[in-house]
Amino acid sequence: MNDAGTGVAGRKAAVSARISPAGGLDILSRHEVARLRGASDSGLHGLLRRCALAVLTSGTISDDPRAILEQYPDFDIQVQQQDRGIKIELTNAPAQAFVDGQIIRGINELLVAVVRDIVYVSTQLKQIGSDDLEPSDALTQAVFEILRNARILKPHIDPNLVVCWGGHSISRDEYEYTKAVGYQLGLRGMDICTGCGPGAMKGPMKGATIAHAKQRRRNNRYIGVTEPGIIAAESPNPIVNQLVIMPDIEKRLEAFVRMGHGIIVFPGGVGTAEEILYLLGILLHPENAGIPFPLILTGPKQSAAYFEQIDKFLRLALGDAVAAHYQIIVDDPAAVAKAMAKGIEKVRNNRLDTKDAFFFNWALRVPLEFQSPFAPTHEAMRGLQLHHGRPLHELAADLRRAFSGIVAGNVKEEGVQAIEKNGPFDIDGDRDIMQALDKLLQAFVAQHRMKLPGGTAYVPCYRVITS
Amino acid sequence: MNDAGTGVAGRKAAVSARISPAGGLDILSRHEVARLRGASDSGLHGLLRRCALAVLTSGTISDDPRAILEQYPDFDIQVQQQDRGIKIELTNAPAQAFVDGQIIRGINELLVAVVRDIVYVSTQLKQIGSDDLEPSDALTQAVFEILRNARILKPHIDPNLVVCWGGHSISRDEYEYTKAVGYQLGLRGMDICTGCGPGAMKGPMKGATIAHAKQRRRNNRYIGVTEPGIIAAESPNPIVNQLVIMPDIEKRLEAFVRMGHGIIVFPGGVGTAEEILYLLGILLHPENAGIPFPLILTGPKQSAAYFEQIDKFLRLALGDAVAAHYQIIVDDPAAVAKAMAKGIEKVRNNRLDTKDAFFFNWALRVPLEFQSPFAPTHEAMRGLQLHHGRPLHELAADLRRAFSGIVAGNVKEEGVQAIEKNGPFDIDGDRDIMQALDKLLQAFVAQHRMKLPGGTAYVPCYRVITS
Amino acid sequence: MNDAGTGVAGRKAAVSARISPAGGLDILSRHEVARLRGASDSGLHGLLRRCALAVLTSGTISDDPRAILEQYPDFDIQVQQQDRGIKIELTNAPAQAFVDGQIIRGINELLVAVVRDIVYVSTQLKQIGSDDLEPSDALTQAVFEILRNARILKPHIDPNLVVCWGGHSISRDEYEYTKAVGYQLGLRGMDICTGCGPGAMKGPMKGATIAHAKQRRRNNRYIGVTEPGIIAAESPNPIVNQLVIMPDIEKRLEAFVRMGHGIIVFPGGVGTAEEILYLLGILLHPENAGIPFPLILTGPKQSAAYFEQIDKFLRLALGDAVAAHYQIIVDDPAAVAKAMAKGIEKVRNNRLDTKDAFFFNWALRVPLEFQSPFAPTHEAMRGLQLHHGRPLHELAADLRRAFSGIVAGNVKEEGVQAIEKNGPFDIDGDRDIMQALDKLLQAFVAQHRMKLPGGTAYVPCYRVITS
Amino acid sequence: MNDAGTGVAGRKAAVSARISPAGGLDILSRHEVARLRGASDSGLHGLLRRCALAVLTSGTISDDPRAILEQYPDFDIQVQQQDRGIKIELTNAPAQAFVDGQIIRGINELLVAVVRDIVYVSTQLKQIGSDDLEPSDALTQAVFEILRNARILKPHIDPNLVVCWGGHSISRDEYEYTKAVGYQLGLRGMDICTGCGPGAMKGPMKGATIAHAKQRRRNNRYIGVTEPGIIAAESPNPIVNQLVIMPDIEKRLEAFVRMGHGIIVFPGGVGTAEEILYLLGILLHPENAGIPFPLILTGPKQSAAYFEQIDKFLRLALGDAVAAHYQIIVDDPAAVAKAMAKGIEKVRNNRLDTKDAFFFNWALRVPLEFQSPFAPTHEAMRGLQLHHGRPLHELAADLRRAFSGIVAGNVKEEGVQAIEKNGPFDIDGDRDIMQALDKLLQAFVAQHRMKLPGGTAYVPCYRVITS
Repeated sequence: MNDAGTGVAGRKAAVSARISPAGGLDILSRHEVARLRGASDSGLHGLLRRCALAVLTSGTISDDPRAILEQYPDFDIQVQQQDRGIKIELTNAPAQAFVDGQIIRGINELLVAVVRDIVYVSTQLKQIGSDDLEPSDALTQAVFEILRNARILKPHIDPNLVVCWGGHSISRDEYEYTKAVGYQLGLRGMDICTGCGPGAMKGPMKGATIAHAKQRRRNNRYIGVTEPGIIAAESPNPIVNQLVIMPDIEKRLEAFVRMGHGIIVFPGGVGTAEEILYLLGILLHPENAGIPFPLILTGPKQSAAYFEQIDKFLRLALGDAVAAHYQIIVDDPAAVAKAMAKGIEKVRNNRLDTKDAFFFNWALRVPLEFQSPFAPTHEAMRGLQLHHGRPLHELAADLRRAFSGIVAGNVKEEGVQAIEKNGPFDIDGDRDIMQALDKLLQAFVAQHRMKLPGGTAYVPCYRVITS
Repeated sequence: MNDAGTGVAGRKAAVSARISPAGGLDILSRHEVARLRGASDSGLHGLLRRCALAVLTSGTISDDPRAILEQYPDFDIQVQQQDRGIKIELTNAPAQAFVDGQIIRGINELLVAVVRDIVYVSTQLKQIGSDDLEPSDALTQAVFEILRNARILKPHIDPNLVVCWGGHSISRDEYEYTKAVGYQLGLRGMDICTGCGPGAMKGPMKGATIAHAKQRRRNNRYIGVTEPGIIAAESPNPIVNQLVIMPDIEKRLEAFVRMGHGIIVFPGGVGTAEEILYLLGILLHPENAGIPFPLILTGPKQSAAYFEQIDKFLRLALGDAVAAHYQIIVDDPAAVAKAMAKGIEKVRNNRLDTKDAFFFNWALRVPLEFQSPFAPTHEAMRGLQLHHGRPLHELAADLRRAFSGIVAGNVKEEGVQAIEKNGPFDIDGDRDIMQALDKLLQAFVAQHRMKLPGGTAYVPCYRVITS
Repeated sequence: MNDAGTGVAGRKAAVSARISPAGGLDILSRHEVARLRGASDSGLHGLLRRCALAVLTSGTISDDPRAILEQYPDFDIQVQQQDRGIKIELTNAPAQAFVDGQIIRGINELLVAVVRDIVYVSTQLKQIGSDDLEPSDALTQAVFEILRNARILKPHIDPNLVVCWGGHSISRDEYEYTKAVGYQLGLRGMDICTGCGPGAMKGPMKGATIAHAKQRRRNNRYIGVTEPGIIAAESPNPIVNQLVIMPDIEKRLEAFVRMGHGIIVFPGGVGTAEEILYLLGILLHPENAGIPFPLILTGPKQSAAYFEQIDKFLRLALGDAVAAHYQIIVDDPAAVAKAMAKGIEKVRNNRLDTKDAFFFNWALRVPLEFQSPFAPTHEAMRGLQLHHGRPLHELAADLRRAFSGIVAGNVKEEGVQAIEKNGPFDIDGDRDIMQALDKLLQAFVAQHRMKLPGGTAYVPCYRVITS
Repeated sequence: MNDAGTGVAGRKAAVSARISPAGGLDILSRHEVARLRGASDSGLHGLLRRCALAVLTSGTISDDPRAILEQYPDFDIQVQQQDRGIKIELTNAPAQAFVDGQIIRGINELLVAVVRDIVYVSTQLKQIGSDDLEPSDALTQAVFEILRNARILKPHIDPNLVVCWGGHSISRDEYEYTKAVGYQLGLRGMDICTGCGPGAMKGPMKGATIAHAKQRRRNNRYIGVTEPGIIAAESPNPIVNQLVIMPDIEKRLEAFVRMGHGIIVFPGGVGTAEEILYLLGILLHPENAGIPFPLILTGPKQSAAYFEQIDKFLRLALGDAVAAHYQIIVDDPAAVAKAMAKGIEKVRNNRLDTKDAFFFNWALRVPLEFQSPFAPTHEAMRGLQLHHGRPLHELAADLRRAFSGIVAGNVKEEGVQAIEKNGPFDIDGDRDIMQALDKLLQAFVAQHRMKLPGGTAYVPCYRVITS
């Protein structure tokens, strides 16, 4: 589906064009235009170029962000100043984003989102910090302001936004299943929010699109929430009609839980497991007791084992009571959609009772430890406390970090080097929890949900301290 | 994607419901409501039931209309009277048309189209005949009135409606290709009109849907034009958002050429070949000289032979000049869309020059012989004159009829019996034309585009009279 | 407010123009266009010209229809054929309808309404009679079809249409009061329907316009219902945004009572009194018992006597029970609007209970004698039976006729001549009723609500038969 | 038109209510809601109360702001916090703003504008100053941001905004004339922006409303630009559908010239004369040469003298060339509208040529001396230089100040006291200019356009220094 012009051998066909931004950035002051233009000159330029390229190759399937950069080595983006507004100047851009020399309107809009968010975060957000807010509140305020600036928060709409999490590289069966679930959600008038990449992030939107068309529903929202480190690897799928680039992983996660009225988790890799722990850690916080938040883990028959193992691990580590916070449904898209509709009805009533907004979950307490990034050094890992008997939300937070660190120790370049240099991480944890963790990771390996260097057998990168 | 209730063994799950019609039939007089109610009691009931069932199983893939009727033997539809308007009472209807007991809005609209058109044609159209119009003009007026009553004719829209013809049962390659063409048309802002069944009638709409979403285009039109004999076998695909049921094949064909601003023909069986002859017969009429009408024959690489053979046959029978009326493009969806856009630009200019409507091609002369049905009896076949030297449009008309008759003699129940009883058809034709016809049909057989009883070798059902 | 070009001495400035119709007549067949064009040639031409001129002088204040025709003696209108649709050719049209050579959009729409209704009634409506309906039902069906064809009937809107009746030539105080009532109705979200002329037909629309603007209400309906004999004298006021020209007085009256959800009567002349009797005659029909129909008589302090006298007369003639059908409110616009809102709430509930349409009052029985015109000859007048003891709706019908006849005998040219020639009408009536009638008419004379020839004292044009 | 409840003797009827804000303030963070609530407690409370009361009495005719405050002595406004958003709590508010206990939607919107602008200016605008902009640019940026925050700047609309200036207390003839001009502007598709009070600020909007209705134009803009010192005396008229409260007179004036595409000046008092000098001072600036800016002075026949005198004065003081910047049209509303349409066409072409925005006149240079307030002390007055030979824009700026000071010395409390204490102002000016000024003021007095204390003969409050 690429009507590009003459291709250069080894490289992809490219187009240069001068674009009027669509769907935003249309009422700017001279001063703001100058600031935008400056941004494309400044240290932000690399970031802008990378994200823009991801958007311009929207719909391309590739797991390797560098591959795209290599295919368009001469690509460049500049924001040009005009008194009247701005123009976006693209040089050697992917031809697939154009039709007969005209940029595709939806891609233009995603491009505008990229420019808007990168500049907004870098210039406006700093000022916001000056308010006399608690650190945690200030971070939440920042999440709110970025979403509002992206015009994603809509008043006067009944709760209907379902966040879908899951792997971006899943089996055909699993992908088809995510479509079927999206279709059933769409038939029931729900909108979709995902990480906006392929796999479990595309399927539900595609299914919902067909269902929305059948229901003659307009004003559908297919919201993509991404961040600079992710967007290149997980280029927005073509259906996303509202894109926001959050500045970091933690704000992205907070955006999901503040905006979404319910979350569905499809099978995925360790990242997905980490997300589950992030959410449960928040829901287990005592201040969040009584706040309804539908969470459904679901997949096709073939993936039943995946959720069984996760369930087992969660119950062992956090106690059986944790299971009250989620529902596992296997191979029944309609049941998933019905359960979600029911759960969201409770969310709606709760918001009405507590006079909270529909478009942003202010009542939810997201503790600072879930808002701050975790760097898995040997020292940080040693500080974790994976013991029974701690407050559950604290244990969940540390479990999430342990998870994060172990993954890094297994596969991430920096982590592997640290392990090679300093030996395994010492983790202060109860033996049963650690064993369960081991087992879970082994299962992921067996199910090809985790790529290990060289495909070797799994060797734990940590040892347990029995204190 | 079926959330139906408890199914009965051997039969499909069914639902009974009372429905408020959506998208039409909302301002009726008491008298009109009574007439509608009467229709569901009268001789129209069988027709209504058959068409309604087709719509309620929209999206189901089945080539056998009877299969559907057998799956829902107890299905019934009644139009109920209320002073305030009408209700449509469905009994034991296919569960797949419902979500949690609510009918899907799009299916409701298609259902309303069925009731509307069947009743309109049977009650209103008779009055129209009373006008003092020429027979051919009266038939055109009827086509116009049915389309207008279905609210399909829209003023103030630039020409952009592309009719897609082709087989409803095509290869995967060919289906994917129709999607790619629809995608390229959609990227360029064109709307799609088809026979509204599966295969080449669904692919272009599906591709256009994705492209329209990418271009953030709203008010898209996916028009399905069907007739009672076809709808059950070719149940409307779920994307159709405007459906009209024409009373017979000829009015359906006229609707296509009056509404469409250009036609694309994908590979198909003999039916598709017949459609090509129908259109060329009209375009070759001297009164239609100078009226631009883009006609593109296209398919993937694998189908190149199909159009080569058709092209060869047409040139031999009708002379090389016939090829000026069509363009063959192989395996290049973007080129097809660009050529169509260019052709439609000419149509637009011509309509402006001649002050003709955009929404209905009044200027085109559709002679009475293309508006009247042809019954292929031995006598009628003997009357055909397949000789070189005749006016081309008359020869084309007879060729189309010969085609129709030969197909009937080969595969249709009635035709086969007639041949068995009375021997082959005598056709008064030039030998070279007849040989070419033979060859074309053989090729269709070889390409599995025609099903012969028992899969036997092809034996001609006609002999040529050399006068 | 007239930006016309050079005026001719004694005549008004005029403009010739070729107009594309706005707001209708946009999807016509070639055949229909020819019919429209024919209409402007045929016997309808005079009617078309007269009504078109009234619309083109919309907003002009003049009580004398001939004056307008004399000001534009060379005015002409022709409907021109184009394959693509129609053009309306205006010659020497009033300059006030144009701005810089462009016709004012609203006036274009009213012009289209004139062409549409005159042609529809003359060509389409004849066919309708062929249905096998009772005479009364057929007339109601005709009223419905004309209104539907004019796109005035709207489904899915809650009852909110208030019909305002009253004199077109009223005092300044009374006019200001009608504005105040319209304002209060508009604040409460009600739409207005009137006879679309000046005075009590303009004031409520003007007040409602301001109120609708304050309430930021869009999709406001200011419906004018007129007929050829009235339109020239009561040229549509500029606020009317939906105009329908009913073929005669009786259909116009039926349109009011079928469409309106309540009626407000402002002070007026004898015509207004006749309208009150028309409506009460219908409401008193036994079959209409239990159908809620809010009817409010209201005026400023200065007009209190007017309604007192009417009330007294109605009670004497029809019994005190008649007063249950109306409410008299003096000098309190807000109270009028509140009472109307309350009454319409009852109408809404009744329609829901009886499953009747919101947009057309099918349940109301309008007997044939209210649908047929009454010609006040001596013979017809002698046939009236103004006696106590008759069914009230029949007595009311005869009273309305007596009223009509007496007015004719007093002031209408034909009536006055008949009286001069044949002496007074003989009316078979009870003395007390006749005396009350006398008194009422005297009061109208005293209040300058009735113009008598020469301004002489009132001499009854009838005598009572005591049988 | 007041449906208020029980009135208290001497005071007006009042209502207390809790209101959901309409048309804005709907996506706020918890933090912002707290800030708004704080505002109503803080030093802003008096300002908020005063402006809110003005809006709630919208449409009332009174020249005396204190009168309103006295009529509603117990009126109060509080902004209430809810997680979900805010509520506006009104106590003892004017009953005329409500219908059956519901606030009128348009008044609700104006109330929201008041809260929005007062809080925005007091909390957000401070941060803006921190940017590293030139003082003049920073002030323009502030004007831009306030207008944008009020959602008044609209992209993608062709230039059509006409600013109307003139007295708020003018004769009936003059008022009717402003309506006629507004009507002619409205017929030609222009929107209106005024100071949003009565008189010349209401008439054009009212006339345009009727014309827009006739042209079936929607999305009309009736923009009111006011400031806290003016709003109470000139309560927004009911037609205003976009209100912005600028923080001071100078920003209000800059808003007019940046937003408007042309300006019409109707007769007024000295304030109007000052406005003319403000605008001419800017247009005479050398950097503004070549920027088209249509300026039309107009009034009915009866006001012809007013503009003659102003014209004479301007020519004498600033030279005949100044007259190239304006056009005087007497008693011809259509000619005014046509001239404005022509002028705006030039503005449009100029913006396209220079790639400037349609919605904000960035190109216009508004020097700092026109942005900064002028306090007419004896010292400041002595500093003025009313000499021929200076750059015209500087002379115009000083003339405007002289005007301002003389008016203060004549009628403003502070000014009169200063004169009484310190004697007349010394002004360093050429004798002929000062004499012309004298004469102009005398004419204003004679025409009752200036109220002098006690109605005494005019005694100059200044003397000329001949240097």
